[in-house]
Order: sequence, then structure tokens, then C-alpha cells
Amino acid sequence: MALLIKNGTVVNDDLMIKADVLVLDGKIIMVEENLVVPENLSKDYQIYDATDRLVIPGGIDPHTHMQLPFMGEVAVDDFYAGTRAALAGGTTMIIDFVIPPKTSSLLEAYKQWRDWADPKVCCDYALSMAVTTWNEQISEEMKIVTEPSFGINSFKFFLAYKNVFMVTDEEFFQGLKRCAQIGALGRVHAENGSVIAEKQKELLEMGITGPEGHTQSRPEELEAEATNRACTLASQANCPLYVVHVMSKGAAKVIAEHRQNGAIVFGEPIAAGLGCDGTHYYSKDWMHAAAHILSPPLSRDPTTPSTLMDLLACGQLHLTATDNCTFTCSQKKLGLNDFTKIPNGVNGVEDRMSVVWEKGVHSGKIDPMKFVSITSTTAARIFNCYPRKGRIAVGSDADIVIWNPSATRTISAQTHHHANDFNIFEGMIVHGVPEITISRGKVVWEYGELNVEAGNGKFISLPPFCNYVFSAIPARARKMQPISVDRSNI
Amino acid sequence: MALLIKNGTVVNDDLMIKADVLVLDGKIIMVEENLVVPENLSKDYQIYDATDRLVIPGGIDPHTHMQLPFMGEVAVDDFYAGTRAALAGGTTMIIDFVIPPKTSSLLEAYKQWRDWADPKVCCDYALSMAVTTWNEQISEEMKIVTEPSFGINSFKFFLAYKNVFMVTDEEFFQGLKRCAQIGALGRVHAENGSVIAEKQKELLEMGITGPEGHTQSRPEELEAEATNRACTLASQANCPLYVVHVMSKGAAKVIAEHRQNGAIVFGEPIAAGLGCDGTHYYSKDWMHAAAHILSPPLSRDPTTPSTLMDLLACGQLHLTATDNCTFTCSQKKLGLNDFTKIPNGVNGVEDRMSVVWEKGVHSGKIDPMKFVSITSTTAARIFNCYPRKGRIAVGSDADIVIWNPSATRTISAQTHHHANDFNIFEGMIVHGVPEITISRGKVVWEYGELNVEAGNGKFISLPPFCNYVFSAIPARARKMQPISVDRSNI
Amino acid sequence: MALLIKNGTVVNDDLMIKADVLVLDGKIIMVEENLVVPENLSKDYQIYDATDRLVIPGGIDPHTHMQLPFMGEVAVDDFYAGTRAALAGGTTMIIDFVIPPKTSSLLEAYKQWRDWADPKVCCDYALSMAVTTWNEQISEEMKIVTEPSFGINSFKFFLAYKNVFMVTDEEFFQGLKRCAQIGALGRVHAENGSVIAEKQKELLEMGITGPEGHTQSRPEELEAEATNRACTLASQANCPLYVVHVMSKGAAKVIAEHRQNGAIVFGEPIAAGLGCDGTHYYSKDWMHAAAHILSPPLSRDPTTPSTLMDLLACGQLHLTATDNCTFTCSQKKLGLNDFTKIPNGVNGVEDRMSVVWEKGVHSGKIDPMKFVSITSTTAARIFNCYPRKGRIAVGSDADIVIWNPSATRTISAQTHHHANDFNIFEGMIVHGVPEITISRGKVVWEYGELNVEAGNGKFISLPPFCNYVFSAIPARARKMQPISVDRSNI
Amino acid sequence: MALLIKNGTVVNDDLMIKADVLVLDGKIIMVEENLVVPENLSKDYQIYDATDRLVIPGGIDPHTHMQLPFMGEVAVDDFYAGTRAALAGGTTMIIDFVIPPKTSSLLEAYKQWRDWADPKVCCDYALSMAVTTWNEQISEEMKIVTEPSFGINSFKFFLAYKNVFMVTDEEFFQGLKRCAQIGALGRVHAENGSVIAEKQKELLEMGITGPEGHTQSRPEELEAEATNRACTLASQANCPLYVVHVMSKGAAKVIAEHRQNGAIVFGEPIAAGLGCDGTHYYSKDWMHAAAHILSPPLSRDPTTPSTLMDLLACGQLHLTATDNCTFTCSQKKLGLNDFTKIPNGVNGVEDRMSVVWEKGVHSGKIDPMKFVSITSTTAARIFNCYPRKGRIAVGSDADIVIWNPSATRTISAQTHHHANDFNIFEGMIVHGVPEITISRGKVVWEYGELNVEAGNGKFISLPPFCNYVFSAIPARARKMQPISVDRSNI
Repeated sequence: MALLIKNGTVVNDDLMIKADVLVLDGKIIMVEENLVVPENLSKDYQIYDATDRLVIPGGIDPHTHMQLPFMGEVAVDDFYAGTRAALAGGTTMIIDFVIPPKTSSLLEAYKQWRDWADPKVCCDYALSMAVTTWNEQISEEMKIVTEPSFGINSFKFFLAYKNVFMVTDEEFFQGLKRCAQIGALGRVHAENGSVIAEKQKELLEMGITGPEGHTQSRPEELEAEATNRACTLASQANCPLYVVHVMSKGAAKVIAEHRQNGAIVFGEPIAAGLGCDGTHYYSKDWMHAAAHILSPPLSRDPTTPSTLMDLLACGQLHLTATDNCTFTCSQKKLGLNDFTKIPNGVNGVEDRMSVVWEKGVHSGKIDPMKFVSITSTTAARIFNCYPRKGRIAVGSDADIVIWNPSATRTISAQTHHHANDFNIFEGMIVHGVPEITISRGKVVWEYGELNVEAGNGKFISLPPFCNYVFSAIPARARKMQPISVDRSNI
Repeated sequence: MALLIKNGTVVNDDLMIKADVLVLDGKIIMVEENLVVPENLSKDYQIYDATDRLVIPGGIDPHTHMQLPFMGEVAVDDFYAGTRAALAGGTTMIIDFVIPPKTSSLLEAYKQWRDWADPKVCCDYALSMAVTTWNEQISEEMKIVTEPSFGINSFKFFLAYKNVFMVTDEEFFQGLKRCAQIGALGRVHAENGSVIAEKQKELLEMGITGPEGHTQSRPEELEAEATNRACTLASQANCPLYVVHVMSKGAAKVIAEHRQNGAIVFGEPIAAGLGCDGTHYYSKDWMHAAAHILSPPLSRDPTTPSTLMDLLACGQLHLTATDNCTFTCSQKKLGLNDFTKIPNGVNGVEDRMSVVWEKGVHSGKIDPMKFVSITSTTAARIFNCYPRKGRIAVGSDADIVIWNPSATRTISAQTHHHANDFNIFEGMIVHGVPEITISRGKVVWEYGELNVEAGNGKFISLPPFCNYVFSAIPARARKMQPISVDRSNI
Repeated sequence: MALLIKNGTVVNDDLMIKADVLVLDGKIIMVEENLVVPENLSKDYQIYDATDRLVIPGGIDPHTHMQLPFMGEVAVDDFYAGTRAALAGGTTMIIDFVIPPKTSSLLEAYKQWRDWADPKVCCDYALSMAVTTWNEQISEEMKIVTEPSFGINSFKFFLAYKNVFMVTDEEFFQGLKRCAQIGALGRVHAENGSVIAEKQKELLEMGITGPEGHTQSRPEELEAEATNRACTLASQANCPLYVVHVMSKGAAKVIAEHRQNGAIVFGEPIAAGLGCDGTHYYSKDWMHAAAHILSPPLSRDPTTPSTLMDLLACGQLHLTATDNCTFTCSQKKLGLNDFTKIPNGVNGVEDRMSVVWEKGVHSGKIDPMKFVSITSTTAARIFNCYPRKGRIAVGSDADIVIWNPSATRTISAQTHHHANDFNIFEGMIVHGVPEITISRGKVVWEYGELNVEAGNGKFISLPPFCNYVFSAIPARARKMQPISVDRSNI
Repeated sequence: MALLIKNGTVVNDDLMIKADVLVLDGKIIMVEENLVVPENLSKDYQIYDATDRLVIPGGIDPHTHMQLPFMGEVAVDDFYAGTRAALAGGTTMIIDFVIPPKTSSLLEAYKQWRDWADPKVCCDYALSMAVTTWNEQISEEMKIVTEPSFGINSFKFFLAYKNVFMVTDEEFFQGLKRCAQIGALGRVHAENGSVIAEKQKELLEMGITGPEGHTQSRPEELEAEATNRACTLASQANCPLYVVHVMSKGAAKVIAEHRQNGAIVFGEPIAAGLGCDGTHYYSKDWMHAAAHILSPPLSRDPTTPSTLMDLLACGQLHLTATDNCTFTCSQKKLGLNDFTKIPNGVNGVEDRMSVVWEKGVHSGKIDPMKFVSITSTTAARIFNCYPRKGRIAVGSDADIVIWNPSATRTISAQTHHHANDFNIFEGMIVHGVPEITISRGKVVWEYGELNVEAGNGKFISLPPFCNYVFSAIPARARKMQPISVDRSNI
């Protein structure tokens, strides 16, 4: 059945205009002011009135960890619960991470993740992949998984989580060079894991075992340091870089500086970092503090969230994600006597769109087009599925949200759709409400009701050598060619 | 007659794809891969093969001064010669400046410029307007000229040219506040004219009368200073700001910093500044030196052009223009004994596109999409004529260039289409050649031949309150509301 | 009579060592560990035990306004009350400002200030002078007052206080060039007075009449802007510059940047800015808010004081002053219905040393040597009275403080020695207490008791062309010589 | 015998005054204008006339590698040749590095260096020590060598020279924490050795074997990265840091930024980096190119030397050294077919003073007092031998240079006193000539003649917990105390 969305303001990242939108068979087929439905469809469509509403591309969350096995637990938002929450919040596509242990082949891990996700996803999804060690096999498999049948076009390196996921500078540099060869984007979790490990030991030895140890063992200077290192190495490798979860001013500033010196680097703040700060870690309530634990931690500087939004506004940070990786309170309690054992991760996939609207648009820092850019379009462009995703345009997938910019809602674990029992944005009143979410042409969320089916989401294969990311790389490679001085005549 | 452009790669600022383009009645009516011309047009169209070519939106030059009366002379590129040169270089729209003397009404000056331009323009054009003094009448007339029948949506203020165009800080601040009220963009020529006037006196007194005096009387630190002042005042006035001709690293850095602190400010480098440096002013050849004189002058730091391109690449500068304002060698000679009398201005409108391609794309700093953004799309967005202009899309004006990215040409006054007899890019070999230029559906430049008609260009009325520029302003105004402390109970 | 200070740690800006200090006839005559008093003095001296104490050079406050006629009132700390307060706080020399109205000759004003000060001062003092307009006579008189009989070696320019003290950019630039010629340091009050005047009008029109209007009419961005302008103009004039009362991060950052680009510029934060922030302006208590009014205002960013101290620590700001200019609460009430009429000025001369110790040394940002540097030595060096002042060394004036680094005191208007009835540091507990103050060999403050005499202070004549400030200027002038291109052969 | 230096201008870092200087028994015993030699000495002294000369503290070079075994060779300037060259250039003290191999005990290495140096040194010297691995024994021995009998108060860590001297981040962090405990300054060679090793492999594989490979394998971005990492880790360890051989703008900027954020970090450019740039590596003359090889390499940006001097001028870099480590041309030839085998190191100890004068004072960037500061005094302060060294003052060692600021000399290997046969400053004409050098009261260099004796230099034991470096550390430690949240009541 067709859908007609009437009387709304269609917002893309480059334009906002009054227009109606016609959807058929999962695709957008017309976008026009005063749209007249073609005769052949004229009996068989449903109308949604979007008066005083914005009609925006569904959100894309390029950084989630559904049902991730981590620190002895498994994230409780699985691909079903997690994608339901996404849709309820106006997000219609996620990019999740395959994270092979150091001992695993990439191909095996890839298969595992597909097996987990395919039967459960309620919205479209794609995959990115972590590289947690380095050898010939890894290098070969990286190439393989960029083939269309696998559809991976980005690889993530951890500079933290020593002895678990962390790679050395040598491994990281090799990995980045390989990414550049095969047209894949390098992504990085940037914290200095070596120093963090020392800090954790120190703090535990001094008897600091509570969640406040988490933030103290991971000073944000260590995030800025690793971000700088990552940007430097990526430039040396001529590899575009994407910094996941930019949590601190220092890290953000580093990205801005490298960009101004010509580096191709993208910065991704997450909902948690845009909506919360790190004062929570000092809460007298252990569970409250523990529930906010993720890495890098929330910044203790209360002006950080606002600065991150300023940098999104001016284009030195680029898109927003969530790092959604939820654990229940009872899972968090594993670290009751040792903060290093508290499973890392928070929610976000449901509330990201509203938090970004509140802190960005409502506060006057950005306009609705930039909102679309940083919640959807830029992700689609970077990960090479644009304009199929990330745009309200003829031919695009009908991933659409009808957004009420004036309505407010109060975020709460009581009402959220996550599988866990805590919400880091608890009590926050946000302007900007996704009233209707449409996933590939199907209305899946309507005024508070979900209507989804496990496995209905599609896997989106992402091709390498994305134009948006790689177009300038060959010319740069030419310029970076080593120079040899001919001294034969001397 | 219709036009079909086949086999090319269509490049917009957000996407590059293989597609054919069909043009009818001055508009783009289809953009599709393997486009099949509809039956009703099937006999009556011309085909252009664009194999290995890019099909890009015609360039928009948002800063020209055709036939400007200035320093006792009139710029020799009039609206005919200037727009011919534009088309030959792949630029299909210009935005020229009405510059009323301090004693003139804005309306009179507006009429004068329309009278000059309308009969002569060969491509579409729009107008911006300077405000060179401040009083009630000016304030009223600013509002009037933003009406559709006038079509002005930006005003420029000079912080230089003391006693001629220069305004004081008070006048500038009043003007910016007025702009904010009426939804017009503030633009600024940023140099400290007060100090420049002193420097000019000093240098002449010391017997420095040659063109080298020009650059020495206008140290680039004075551009950075005025740029900083302008950004500060615009933020205080809650008025979006556009800095014309960003010529120095210092000025560019200032813009980047203000943006990172949340300011809405756009920076415009020009072809001259991207392609040349200020060492020319010390040429032993007076005419060569004099021919490079414009204000602010070319930077004497030879790394400036590359840095400006880096800042365009990372999004801290935004679009490119030319400040095209040409004088013949014999006009330049007016200042033979006094550099302050050399008419200021250089060419650019013809060569901008090629210079930006060479220094930007060919050098690996930017990709073809960013090229389109900074030569066309962003101008269209900022000046509120997007997507009519600045995009290859159904419904847009058929302002199209077939661009050969591999071909080269050598720039020369011998072959250029300007009315003057000097080209500041003389001898530069540039990759990127506009082979065919189409202006509202008409082929006006084809493999080296112009086919234009005076008056064929249309005046494009630019509406105020452009979404791209002003959407965030009301929320900011709300936040900037003065706070009054209630002390009634004390 | 001689004084022997035993068992203390003598702290100079370059060294801290255990040593005893012997004073005779107002001079320091010996500094040695285990000092043995020469026989000829052995009967006639007084011993002060400084065990666990620091023996430091008396503070120098290079920025005070004793009994300044301003805004229709006269500052209530006259040269008697003000210098008593200074001594009670460990400051043994002040540099006050002669501020001629625009209509006055510099010489007349100079005489007026000497007449006011000489009979009243209890500690040594010197003078700096403001230049509030520009003409030939001013230019001549500037030279005259740098002669030894006048002893002025610095001139201050106001970029704020429109129509009262403010100079234009032209005047300022002329003044700076004149300073460079006569070897005098340029000093500047940096705020954009033109915009402030507009803001004041706006706010009053909107009905904002309370002290909160003061801070809102003077956004700190306007301080940063003017600071940048001043630094730029000073560099162009090849004149060393001293920015008085650096109140905001923005202004401080500007100074740091200009210094890194080679400018000779000094930055002076004041006690108020290091100890307080601008949240006071929103106090519900009108008098409390009004009492904090000075210009530029205290920064509303609560992290500013700490940042200013960081910049003192790293050497990008240089010395501390007070801008001491006190008005009683009843004087402040003149502006009860109009914040622009509240006399500007706060206390500081008594508490500066303790505030700097608390925020600097006690907090771990600086060490005691740097403390001496920024409270005394650097002022002596910049104003060319070093090592007579600012150093504990043989031959120096015996301006000495015995400082207890461990003791604390609570600052209060109840106990201070100022003539006014409000203290902006009220209630602040500060480590670092001046237990004994010695002014040219005389103990004038001892454990809470003052023992001073009006007129006992000496006028210190400050010679121009100070080595510390001007040594590099001639070589720079040589490098800045305009270049003339010889084109005779062409 | 006593020495009287008459009629000169005595320059210390804080003052320059006309004064005569009297020297007896290796110490300065009087500094006075119109000095009258005490009767008891009146027959037995030699007079040096210093009219129009500056009398300055002998230079201190805090970074040399005399007779260092390195890369299979031994540096050819041994402690004899090297210290002779030093004296000829006006440097009267060096601080050399004990560099234990990873397998050696610190104590053994210490003994080795003393055995090498003591019999040969012609000027006073002190030692710093490298830590090239980490274990309990190292940690213990670090403490031991800070005892007075050993006299080490600084430790250097290499982040480059992989598999030779390089330490990991964990080792470095442990080492810095240990330094903080024992009151020793951390020093760092900052380059990312991991990436360099990869780059070297790449380049050799591509057939780049010449000296141009050296600079290409060590991009200056890798120096900036490692400098940033080092500063970050040092702050986390609460350890003052000293960055040796700051060679690039990027590294220097990093230091400035960390300082502005409160870090205690010192930056040391070297003569090579202030006087040369890296264009030499592309010389067609292999030997010329190879002779310039040191690590980090000279910056290829020709504006780097001037920028480094600007940062010395403004106080964001602090002192100058040389990294003097000379190899003959025949030694350099070891790397004829492989740039990674060319022994790293250049001259400097003889010419540093003149190069700094030329580029600093003669160019107008700094004044003579700052010259003294960055060539002598600051080194003495940082390494805790001030004011015994680094000052012309009563009681100080008579390490004095009579400096002719107007004379020039041309640097050349033909005339230098180094043991090697190449001088990187060949042909440079420098203002500022050390006419007479006095080492602990003995005239050792007089108008071109050396008069030295091997072993005449003294070892200077440097005590830990230097006030200048460590005074603020305890207060910082207090503030950095981990915070534990008490949740007992919840």
C-alpha cells in the first residue's frame, strides 16, 4: 500500500521546503508541493497529515553494540530490542560492530554477527568490523569482507582495553595502511589504554573501588592524546579516519586542528556525551554512578556537551551516534567491589534524535537541516549508502520520520523501549518528538505504538571506496610519493 | 530545443554518479542513468556526449564589480564583457555589488546598477548592496530593497577605504543589527582603514611611491584584526556574517575560531588569493606589480594560498568568489607616482573555476563534490536561490558545465575574454577545463567559442530570511534576551 | 637604626634560599646565610625572627587610581588611605595614573597628581599617564614628562569610556608611534567602547537599569576584540604594549597568541579578576552587585580566574595589579536607577598579595619565586626601577615583607584598611599572610598594626628606554624599514 | 691570580648594567661600577678591558653526547675535543648523557661515563641519565644516582630508536612517576619510534636509500605526536618534563599548549634547529646531506627556525642546547647504501652561542638578557646549579665570557675546534663573538687561542628536588589525590 504524507515541511540536509511525499513499495516515489497522487494509486493509499510537522529522513545510528559479549556479560539490548528502541526514537538504520576476539578470524566473527542480527532486526542495519590484532590472515580477510557479499567498508581499532581489544601503534599503523589500500574507512576508539591500565591499578591499590574510579582512571587528557596519535598515524598512512565517541573538548579540538591542517578525519560525538556530563560518577548512589559508565567516560567538565554541539554546528565534528550498549543494573553490579569490572555501556539509540534536537536546534546552535545532516545524511554519505538512505528524495528508501518540533516529551526508563532498566537521560524534557516512524515504507511507530516484526530489517551491504571519503585519496597518494634524490652525477 | 547530456558523471555537492541529463526550456527535466528521452521530445533535441567528463552546476561567483566607478576610473569589464568571461570559464551566475556613495540613496543606486546591468548581462545575475554610511533613511531603504521587486538579501560594509566607503564601528554595528531584523546577511570588507591611512601617509612621506607601498601600507595583520572585529560585532548583533575576500591566514584563522565558538560566519577566499601570492608587488616591472593590486592585497606569505584551500577543504572557509574588478594597464598608470592612486582590482571571473580545480582537486585537497560546493552550491544556498541554482536536479535551472577534469589549459591575457589587457594568472597551467557551458538551457560556450547575447541573462531576485543562513537566529535571539534581575523583594 | 631579619627563606624571582637580611638606612646591605652583623652596627639593630617565614620583596602594584575624580565622584581611597592599605597587605610601592581630561595639558595634570600624592603617600609611588586625545601639544608634552624631573615612562590609552577618555584607532596609533620614539611603554584599557555605548542604550531602553546591565553591556568578547586590536596596532607601531586589567580568557588568549607571533606585549590580570567572577552582578542585593562593578567587568565564566592564573604560571601573562579605585556604597548609589552611572571601581591594593598566594601558590599553580615575580619583580623590571625595587639584594631599597605561607586570614571590610565600606573578597579565607612590612627600612606594618606617616613615601622617577622593554626595539625597527623597489632600469 | 674585567656591560638574565667584575680563586668576588680593587689584591691581578663588550655568564649546554657509542661508532668529539670546542664558543659547562644499554645497570653506566669524562674535560660538566627499559633494579638505581655522590637529577626517556633505546608508554609512565617521587626531572626524546620503524622499512623497500630517506622516515608530525604524548603522560604522573631537541613547529606548539593548560614542561631547541633547515637532506651531495642527519631531523619547513626563536622569545620554549654528537664524514659513510645506518648527530657546542645571538638578538627577536637566559641561566636554574652557574654575581663561579656584540665571524669546519670534519653552519656569518672565555677564573680562550688542560673541568653534582622545577609539585599532588565517594549511608 502507498503512503501519502501531506502538508509537512520536508527537511533534507541542504533544503527545507513545504512538500508532500508519496511512498510506494518501500521507496519514495514523489516529493512535491501540492502533490497529486497518480491515478493508478489513487484508491490505495493511506494519508498522514504532517501539518506543522517536519518530514525528515529516518535517523542513522552508525555506532551500536547490540547483544555484544563484553566483560563477561552480553549487552541486554539485542538486535530485536535495540532496533525496536531505535524505531521508537526515529532511527531507521543502525551500523553495528562485529568485534572478533584477538584469536578469532574476521570471517567467523562476521558470520556470528549476521546469525545474531538477521533474524532479529526490526530496522535496516549494516556492519562495521573491529581489528583487534595484526597478522597476514587478518590483512587478507579485511579485503574479503569488503566484497559486496559481506558489505563491510570500515574497520575499527581500539587504542584502549589493554590485553582485550587494544592494538599497538605498529598494528594500528599497519591496519590503517591496509584500510587505505582496500578503500575502507579507519575508525578508532581513542584512549591511551596503557596509561589507563596503570591508573586502574593505582586506584584499586589506594582503595578506590567505586564508579568514581572509572572516571579517575580515564582522565580525558588520555582521550585527547590518543585522538591526536590516531589522527597523526592516519595521515601518515593516507587513510581517512573516523573517531568514534568523541567525549571531550580536548579530543574534539584535536580533530579540528588536524582537519585544518588538511587531514580527512570525521568526529562522532554520541548522545550520552551531548546530553550528560561526568558529575554522575560521583553520585552517592552506586547504581546511578555505575549506570553512567562507558568508555571514554562522560566528561566531568559541565561545558563539554555544549562545546561538542558547537563543533557539530561549525562542521568540525560531523555526525552523532550512540555507542548503545546497555546492561541492566544487575549486570552492572558485577563491578560492585571493583569499578574495572562494571560492564561499560549506556543507552542512546532511542533518545539520540530528541537529545540532539533539544541541545542543538532548540538551543539555537543548529538549524533543522544541520540536524538532519548530523543524525542521518552524513552517516549515509560516510558509509556509502547515500542517497538510498539519509535523504527524502525520489528513489530513496522510505525511511521517514514525522517530527514534531514543538512537542516535548520526558525521557524515562519507565517508558523507554530498551531492554535495560536505567536511562541516562532520565527526567530530561526534550523538545522534538518523532510522532511517526516509517521503515522502508512501513509505519512502524505511530503515536507511541510500535508495530514491528523481528527480521523485517534488511542488511545493507556497504561498498568500499566511498566517493565522499576516498575521492581525494589518490591525488594525495601521488603527492606523498617518496622522493628519491638522484646523486649519480656526483 | 531540448538538450541531452549523455554518458557523463553528474557531480553535485553531495553525490557524484553516472547519469544523463535532459534539459528543456531552460530547466533540467530529467537526471537518470541510461536516460530514455520521453516520446514527445524524441525528435527535437541535441546530444552532448560527456564521456569521461563531469557534468556540474554552473559556477556562481558571489562577488564581482562589473563596470564599477572606483578611484576615478570605471572597471573595464562591464556587465557584457564580464559575464562573457564568466561563461567562458564555466560560471553561469554572478552576484554584483551596488555601491552607493555616502551621499546617495540606496534606491537611486539600485536603479543605476539595474540600468547598467540589465541590457548587458549574458548570464544570470543578482545583486548585493553596500552600506557606506548610516542614517534613518538608509535603515528604511535597506528594508525596502529586500522586497521581491528589488531582490537584495545581503549588505556589505567596508572597514577600509577611509573617507570613501568606510564605516565606523558604531555604524557597522547599527547596520548589522538592522540586517538581523530584516533577514539580510551582513557582508564585510575587513581591513583596518584607519591604520592603513596612516601607513599610506608614512610611506609616501618616506618616498615609497611604487606598488610595493600598497602591500606595505596594508599589512595582513590589519586584515586579521578587522576580521576579528567584524566577527565580534556580528555575534553581538546576532547577525550572520559573510567575510568577503579572505586573503590571509590570520583572517582565515579568525573565522575558524569564531565559528568554533558558535558564530554564524562564512568566509570567501577569491581566485586571486588561491592562485597568487604577494611577491608580485616587489616585481621590478612596475606594471606587473601594479596589475596585482587589489585590497586586501595578496599575501606575501607564499604558503597562504595552500592554507586557504585547506580551510575550504575542512569547511572553515566556505565558497570562492573573485572580486573581479579589472582595470587596464593604462588605467593602472594613474598611480604611477603614488601607489594609493592605482585603481584596485584584478581579474578572476573567467579563471576561478580552473584555478580552484587545479589548487583544490588536482592537488588532492578536495574532491569534485567539494569543488561543486565551493564554486556553486554553497553560494546558491547562502544567497537563497538553491536549488534553482547550484544543483543538477530536476526542476533546477539548466546552468550546466561539461567539465574535462584531465585536460589542461594555459591561462593568458592573450586568450582570455576579459576587457583588460593583463591576467594575474598569466602562464599558469591548470587542469580542469570547462568545455561546454550551458546557461538556462542555452549552449553559450562550446570548445572555445562564445555564443552569447547582451541582456540574455536574467536578474535573480534573492529573498531575505534564507533558511540556510537564518534558521537558527530566532532561537539565538531568545537566548540572548537581556536578563533583568528582580530586586523588588530586597 | 638597622634591622636584621634572621632565619627566614629569602625568595627572589630567581631563587629561594635560607638567608638573613641586614637593613641599614633604608637599604639592604647584606644577604647571607648565618649573617654576622658587622661590628660597627653590632649594638644598634633590631632583630626580626623569620623562622618558617618567607622574606620577600615588597609588592608593587602597577595600577592604582587613588582619589581619582571619576564619573562625578572621587575615589575614596586617597593617597593616604590607599597606601596604608597597600602596606597592610604587603605592597610597598604603587604606580598610579595621571589621567588628564581631553581638554587638559599633560603637564597641568601631572602637577595636580603630584600635589595630591606627595603629601599623603605612606609608601613609595611612581606615576603612569593617560593620553585621552591627540594633538601636537600632547605629543610634545609626552616627551617632556619622560624627563627625569617628571619620571613618567608609560602612557595609557583607553579604547572604552566613549566621549570621556576613549581615543580613536587613529589617535591610538599615533600615540603608540610616539611612545616608541620616546622610549615609553604603551598601556591600554582594551574594550570596544563604541559597541558598549550602543549596548548601554539598548539595555536602558529595554528597562534594564540594574547592575546586571553593566556586565551585559560589556560582553567579554568586546574586551578580547579590543585587546586584539591594541596588540595589532602596537606591533604595527613597533611599540611594546602593556594590557592593563586582563579580565577574560579571550583577552588573555589574544595576548598569548600575539606573543607567540613575536609581539612584545605584557598582560596584567588584577586581584579582582583572579579572585572573583561575574556572577555577583546578578545578585538580588543591589548594593552587593553594584559594589563589584568595574570595567572591564568580572568575567561571568567561573573558570576564568583559574585560567588567568594558569597563564601567569606559564608566562603568557606577566604581573598582577589591582586597578584599586574604591567608592563607598553611598557613592555607588548614584547609579541606583541607571547602571551606567554607578562609579566603576573596586578594592584590591590591600588583598592582592594574599589572593595571588591563595589562588596561585596554595593551589599549586605557581611556586613562591613566581609569586615574587608576578607581585613585584616583573613590575620593577617593566617600569625600570629594578633592582632598586623588586629584589632582596644588596643595594636594593629595603622594601621587604615577612610572609607567613602557612597562616590564614579572612578578608573582610570589617577589618580592612581601605576607606570604603565594602570588600569584594569578603569572607575569603586566604593562606599567605604579610606579618611584617618594611618600607625603605622602616617597619610600617607589624602583626596587625600600622605605623605610617603621610608623605613618608617617595616619588620614584622612572626613566624611559627601559632595557627590559626596549632592548629589542631598534633591531626590530631596522627590520621593519619600508622597502623601496628600484625600478630605474626598467 | 685575580682578574679584573673593566668597562664592560654586565648582562644577567634580569639586568644589564655597566659594571666591572673582579675574579679571585675561580669565583666572582666583586661586581661594581667603577670597581676599586681591594688593597690586599692590588698588585696581583690581570686586567681585561671590556669596553663596548658584554660580560656574560658562560654558556651552559645542557645536552651533549661526547664520545657516545652509537650506531656502531663512537662520536668523535670526546670529552676533550668537545669541551675545547665548547670553550672556544663561549660555553663553560656541559651536561652530558649517561646512556645505559637496555641490559646495563645504571650504576655501571654511570661509572663508565665518569671514567671517560673526568680525565678529559676542559670545562665543568654534569650528567643526566637515560632510562632505556624498566624493572625494579632500574627504579632502585634511579634513586641511588640522585644522591650527592652521583649528582644526577634528571632522566631521559626515548620514544624513538625502536629496539635500542625506546621505551613503551607503560615504561615511560612508570619512569615518570618514579622521577616525581625522587625529585628528578623527566626528559624526553619525542618521536614515534614505532611508526618510524615502519616508514624506514617502506622507504628502503621502495629503494630510497639516501639521506633524503632519513627525513621522509621521520615526518615532523611524528615528533609533534610524541611530544604531545609525553606532555600528557608527564602531567598524569605529576612529573615536570623537559623536551630535548624541539625541532618542529608542531612540537613547539604542543609544548606551548600544555603549558597554557598548566603543565610544567620545558622546551629545548638546539643550535642546529635554530640555524638550519631540512632542505639539506635533498642535497645532490651525499656527504652534505648525510652530515646533517640527526634525530629528530631538521625541519623541512624553512620558517621553522624563526618560529622556534619566537617561542624562545615569548617564553614558551626555554633554553638552547646542541645535542652535540659529531661523526666524521668517513663515519657517516657507513650508511652509504642505507640511510638508517648513517650515524645520527651533528655539531653545535662551539657555535651555539653565536647562532643564537645572530638569529635571536641581531634579528631583534630577543634582547641580550634573554640571550643570557636561554644560553645559560635557565639551564642553571632547571638543573639546580644556579646561581653558582649562570650568573655574574658575587659568589658565583667565574665562568665568564667577554662578548663582542658587533664583531662577526664566519663559521667553518676549517677553523672550528671540533674533532670532525664538517660543520653544519659552514659559511654562516654570525654577529656576536666570544672574545675571551674564562672557566672558573682561568682564561681558557683569548682572541682565538685556546689554553686548556684535559681534566681541568670539574664534575658538578646536581641535587634533586630543584626549587625551580619542583616547588609547585607537592601542592599539585595534594590536588590530584584520588577522590573516594563514601556511599556507606546508601
